[in-house]
Amino acid sequence: MALAVYLSGEIHTDWREQIISASEGLDVVFSSPVTDHDASDDCGVAILGAEDQKFWHDRKGAMVNAIRTRRGISAADIVVVRFGEKYKQWNAAFDAGIAAAEGKSLIVLSQPDHDHALKEVHAASLAVARDPRQVAQILRYVLTGKLPEAEQMAAE
Amino acid sequence: MALAVYLSGEIHTDWREQIISASEGLDVVFSSPVTDHDASDDCGVAILGAEDQKFWHDRKGAMVNAIRTRRGISAADIVVVRFGEKYKQWNAAFDAGIAAAEGKSLIVLSQPDHDHALKEVHAASLAVARDPRQVAQILRYVLTGKLPEAEQMAAE
Amino acid sequence: MALAVYLSGEIHTDWREQIISASEGLDVVFSSPVTDHDASDDCGVAILGAEDQKFWHDRKGAMVNAIRTRRGISAADIVVVRFGEKYKQWNAAFDAGIAAAEGKSLIVLSQPDHDHALKEVHAASLAVARDPRQVAQILRYVLTGKLPEAEQMAAE
Amino acid sequence: MALAVYLSGEIHTDWREQIISASEGLDVVFSSPVTDHDASDDCGVAILGAEDQKFWHDRKGAMVNAIRTRRGISAADIVVVRFGEKYKQWNAAFDAGIAAAEGKSLIVLSQPDHDHALKEVHAASLAVARDPRQVAQILRYVLTGKLPEAEQMAAE
Amino acid sequence: MALAVYLSGEIHTDWREQIISASEGLDVVFSSPVTDHDASDDCGVAILGAEDQKFWHDRKGAMVNAIRTRRGISAADIVVVRFGEKYKQWNAAFDAGIAAAEGKSLIVLSQPDHDHALKEVHAASLAVARDPRQVAQILRYVLTGKLPEAEQMAAE
Amino acid sequence: MALAVYLSGEIHTDWREQIISASEGLDVVFSSPVTDHDASDDCGVAILGAEDQKFWHDRKGAMVNAIRTRRGISAADIVVVRFGEKYKQWNAAFDAGIAAAEGKSLIVLSQPDHDHALKEVHAASLAVARDPRQVAQILRYVLTGKLPEAEQMAAE
Amino acid sequence: MALAVYLSGEIHTDWREQIISASEGLDVVFSSPVTDHDASDDCGVAILGAEDQKFWHDRKGAMVNAIRTRRGISAADIVVVRFGEKYKQWNAAFDAGIAAAEGKSLIVLSQPDHDHALKEVHAASLAVARDPRQVAQILRYVLTGKLPEAEQMAAE
Amino acid sequence: MALAVYLSGEIHTDWREQIISASEGLDVVFSSPVTDHDASDDCGVAILGAEDQKFWHDRKGAMVNAIRTRRGISAADIVVVRFGEKYKQWNAAFDAGIAAAEGKSLIVLSQPDHDHALKEVHAASLAVARDPRQVAQILRYVLTGKLPEAEQMAAE
Repeated sequence: MALAVYLSGEIHTDWREQIISASEGLDVVFSSPVTDHDASDDCGVAILGAEDQKFWHDRKGAMVNAIRTRRGISAADIVVVRFGEKYKQWNAAFDAGIAAAEGKSLIVLSQPDHDHALKEVHAASLAVARDPRQVAQILRYVLTGKLPEAEQMAAE
Repeated sequence: MALAVYLSGEIHTDWREQIISASEGLDVVFSSPVTDHDASDDCGVAILGAEDQKFWHDRKGAMVNAIRTRRGISAADIVVVRFGEKYKQWNAAFDAGIAAAEGKSLIVLSQPDHDHALKEVHAASLAVARDPRQVAQILRYVLTGKLPEAEQMAAE
Repeated sequence: MALAVYLSGEIHTDWREQIISASEGLDVVFSSPVTDHDASDDCGVAILGAEDQKFWHDRKGAMVNAIRTRRGISAADIVVVRFGEKYKQWNAAFDAGIAAAEGKSLIVLSQPDHDHALKEVHAASLAVARDPRQVAQILRYVLTGKLPEAEQMAAE
Repeated sequence: MALAVYLSGEIHTDWREQIISASEGLDVVFSSPVTDHDASDDCGVAILGAEDQKFWHDRKGAMVNAIRTRRGISAADIVVVRFGEKYKQWNAAFDAGIAAAEGKSLIVLSQPDHDHALKEVHAASLAVARDPRQVAQILRYVLTGKLPEAEQMAAE
Repeated sequence: MALAVYLSGEIHTDWREQIISASEGLDVVFSSPVTDHDASDDCGVAILGAEDQKFWHDRKGAMVNAIRTRRGISAADIVVVRFGEKYKQWNAAFDAGIAAAEGKSLIVLSQPDHDHALKEVHAASLAVARDPRQVAQILRYVLTGKLPEAEQMAAE
Repeated sequence: MALAVYLSGEIHTDWREQIISASEGLDVVFSSPVTDHDASDDCGVAILGAEDQKFWHDRKGAMVNAIRTRRGISAADIVVVRFGEKYKQWNAAFDAGIAAAEGKSLIVLSQPDHDHALKEVHAASLAVARDPRQVAQILRYVLTGKLPEAEQMAAE
Repeated sequence: MALAVYLSGEIHTDWREQIISASEGLDVVFSSPVTDHDASDDCGVAILGAEDQKFWHDRKGAMVNAIRTRRGISAADIVVVRFGEKYKQWNAAFDAGIAAAEGKSLIVLSQPDHDHALKEVHAASLAVARDPRQVAQILRYVLTGKLPEAEQMAAE
Repeated sequence: MALAVYLSGEIHTDWREQIISASEGLDVVFSSPVTDHDASDDCGVAILGAEDQKFWHDRKGAMVNAIRTRRGISAADIVVVRFGEKYKQWNAAFDAGIAAAEGKSLIVLSQPDHDHALKEVHAASLAVARDPRQVAQILRYVLTGKLPEAEQMAAE
C-alpha cells in the first residue's frame, strides 16, 4: 500500500511542492490542509452563512477545515509539520500534538533558531529536518532503503 | 472521585494560583508541568549528564519533562491550556493537540487578540475563557451545577 | 469498587430521586447532568459572556454541559437513559448513542407508547424498564444477586 | 481513497438524493440505512420469523438493521444526520451519539426551529447545515478546497 | 468495500456452502477456519514437529489455527457462529466471545433445543437464525435492503 | 491495588469457595456471576415482567446478567474460567473469549478428558489448572513470588 | 486481502529470501526493516547531518528506521522474529514486544540453544519455528489449509 | 495518585533496591517481576505439574510469570528497563517493546558499551540512565520539580 503522508503547517512557501517533486517515483500519497489562505479562513461562512462576530466566523471555518485535517492526519503513516519564520502557527503545533497522540510518525521541518521553542515537539518527533529535500530523502529511505549517496551513485 | 484538571501552558504569570484559589472547597486535583523555568530547561542534563549541543541539551530536558506532562494529561478529566502574551508557546498548542486527540475536555484561556491565530485550537475546545476566574467558575458549575450568580446569592 | 451509574435524560420529574432512594444501602455512586433547567440553558453565557445569537448562546451552554456529561458517562458502569412524555429529548438519545459506542451497560426507562420510536435505542440496551423501581431492582440484583421477592422475604 | 459519508436520519424526503446529485464528480462513497420504511420495520420478522409481541417484533428488526447501520457509521469519515420536521427521530440522535463517540466528523442537517432541542448534538458536530446543497458544498470543499463562489466562477 | 463475513463453528455439515451459494451475486467475502478436521488437529505437529504429550500436540495445533482465526474475525464485519447438534463446541462459543468483545455484528445459527444453553451468546448477537438460508437473507438485506418476498417478486 | 479476579463458569460445585479460602491473606478481590441458578435464570422476568416465549424469557435474563458479567470481566486482572463435568457451558467459553479479546490473563480450570475440546481456549490461556488449590497457588505466586514448597517451609 | 507479514530480526543470513521463495504462489505481502547494515546504521546522519557523539548518531538512525519499522509491524497480520546465533539482537526482542502488545500473531524463528533465554518471547508467540521452511509452511496452511504432506501429494 | 513504576530486567544485582531506597519519601509504588531466579524458572511446573520437555517446562513458567509482568507493566506510569552486563536479556527488551507499544514512559538503565546494541530501545525511551541514582532523581523531579542540586541545597 502506498505510504500516506500528511503535510501540515506553514502555507506561505512552496515547501509542499518541493517535497512532492523530490519524491517523484515513490509510492507515496500526499495530503494537506487547504492551502488557499482566504478559502481556509472563510469556508465556514461562505457555505453555512455569515456571522456578525469574528469569533464565530473563525469557529465555523476552523470546524469545516477540521473535517479535512482530521481525515488527513488519521489516514497518514507520517505527518510532516512545517514551522515557518513568521506567525504563531499554533495550528501546526496542535496538529503535531494530535499526530503524536495517535502514534503517527512525526517529522518536523524547522530552522535552528526555533529549536528551543520547539523542543517539546521535536522530542515527540522521529526526525527534525531543515529543508524539504531531507524530508523526501527520508521518504525514499523508508520505502526503498536507499540513502542519498547510494541514490546518486546509482543515478550516475 | 475528584475532578482531575491539568493546567498547561504559560508559566510566567500566576494564573494557576488564581484558578486554584478560586476553586477552594471544590473536589479538584490540579496538576501541571514543572513551572520553574530553569529547572524545566535543564532537568535533562542536570540528571543525565551534560551535552555539547544545545539541540540535544533541549531534547534531553524535553523528554524528561514529557514523563510528567504525559501523565498529567492522560490522568486529567479537563485540560486547561493558557496562551500568554509572549513567546511562541508551541508546547501549549502541542499539549492541546494531545488533549484533543485523547478526548479530554479542553478549556482554552486566551485573549481576544489571539483568537484568529488560535481558531483551530478553540474549535477543538469546550470553552474559551478570558480570565482564570471563569475557569474556576466552570469547574464549580461542572461539579455543583451552581452558576456564579446563584453562588453569590447563596452566599448572601 | 462502587458501581458507577449515570442518570441521563428527562429532568422534569423526580425519577432520579426515586432510583436513588430505592437503592439505599447499595454501594452505588450516582451522577447526572445538571438538572436545574435554567442553569443548564444559561451556563455558557453566564460564565463566558453573553451572545447576541441564540444559536451561539445555546452552543456555549451545551459545550460547558458536555464537560460534565462526558465525564459522567465515561466513568459509568451503567448508563440509565430516561425518556419522558414530552419534548424531543434528542440529548437523551444522543447520550444513549455515546454510551452504546463506549460499551457501557445501557438501561432505558420509557413507556410502551414510545417503544416503536425507541426501537433502535432499546436494541442497544440491556434492559427496558417502565418505572424507576425496576431500575433500582436491577442495580440491587447486579450487586447482590437478590431478586425483588427474595428481598421482600428477607425483609419480613 | 474515496471519502466515505454515511447519511443517517429522516427517510421521508429526498435529501439523500439531493446531496448525492449535488456531489457529482466528487470521489465520495455514500452509504445509508435502509430507507424503505416497511422493509426497515419488518426485516427482523420477515427473515427470522414472526413475533406475537410488537416489542420483540421491533427488537428483531432493529437488531438486523443495526448490522447495516454500525458498518456504515464505523466505515465513514463523515456522518451526516438529518432531523426532519416530524416524529421523535431518536434513532437519528442515537446515531449522532455513536458517531461522536467514535470520533467521526459529524454534520447535522436541521432547521432553526429545532436548534434549541438539538443544542447538545450541534455542539458535538463540525457543521450545522440548513439544506442538502450546503452539505454537498462542504464535501466539495473538503475534497477540493473549492468554495461555492470559486466553483461558480470556474464554471463560467 | 465488500462485506466481510467470518463463518465460525461446526465443521461437519455443509452449512457454509449453503450460505455461500445462497449469497450468490452479493458483494461478500467469506472466510472461515480450516474445516479439514484432521489438518486442523495436526497442523501444529505436522509443521513444527511431533509432541509426546497430547496436551502439547493440541496446543501447537490450536496456536497455529489461531493465526487464521484471529485474522478472520478481526477482518470481519459480521461473524456467524454455528452450533451443531453434537460435541462441546467450546471453540465456537469462544469465537463468539471474541467477536462480541471486538464489537463485530454477531449472528448465531442454532436450533431451539439449544436456546437455553446459548442464552448468553444469543443475548450478545444481533440475530438468531435457524437455517443457513436465513443468514444469506440477512446478508442480502444488509447489502441491498431487499427482503425475501421483495426478492421473489422482483425475480418473477 | 488489590488483584482483581473474576471467577467464571460452572456454578454447581464449591470451586469458588475453595479458591477464595485458599487465598486467605492475599490482597485479592474476587467477583463472579450470580451463582444462584434460579435467580440467574429468572432475573429478567422477575424484575422487568413476564414473557410468553421462553426465548425472550431467557434473553431478558441473560441481558440483565450481562450487566454484572461485563463489569466483572472488564474490571479483572485475571479471569478464571471453570469447565465442569456436565452441560454445554457455552457461557463459560463465551466469557473466556471476551477475556482473551480484552487482554485479560486467562486461567482455565478443567479436567484432562476435556483437554481436546478445550484446546482453543487453553491456547489463549496462561495456565491450565486441574484443581482450585492450583489457582490459589498461582494467585499467591503472582502477588508474593512464593511457590507452594517455599510457603510450606516458611510456615514451618 | 493479501496476508501481510513483517520479517523482523537478524539481517546477516538469507532467511528472509528463503521464506519468500518458499511462499511462492501465496497471496502474501512481505515487508522488513532495511537490511543493508551500513545504511541502517547511518541513515540518520546521512540524511539529517553528522553528529559528534556516537550516542546521537545512533539515535538519529534508530528514529529514522523506526518510521519504517512501526509501519511494517502495524500493518502486519503476522510478525516473524528471527533470532540468530550472534549479537544481542535486542531490537528483535523489542519488535516482538511491540507485536505482542499490538495483538499481532507472532512467530519466532530460533534455535533450541536459545530456548531458555527466549522463553518469555516464545510464550507470547503462536509458533516457534526452527527453519524458514516451517514459517512458509505455516503461511501456506493459514492461507490454504494445506499441510506439508498434503501439498506434496497434491504436487505428485 | 501515587506514581506507578515497574522495574523490569536484570535480576542479579541490587539496582532495584538502590532506586527504591533513593526514592524514599516520594509517592511512588514500585512493582517488579519475581526476582528469585529459581522460583521464576520453576513456577509453572511447581504449581501446575512437571514436564518432560524443557521447552514446555519453560513455557509453563513463562506464562505464569506473564500474569504478573503484564499487570505490572499495564498498571505502570513509568517502566524502567535495566540491561546488565551478561546474558541475552531478551525478556528485558521484550518488556521494553510492550511498554513502548502501550505508550508508557520508558527509562532505560544501561552502560555505554551497550549503546549501539540498544539504539532502537533507546530511541523509544524518554531517558537513558547510567546508574540507579539517576532513575531516582528523575522520579523525584517528575513528582516534585526538584533537581539534584536544588535538593542538596534545600537539605543544607
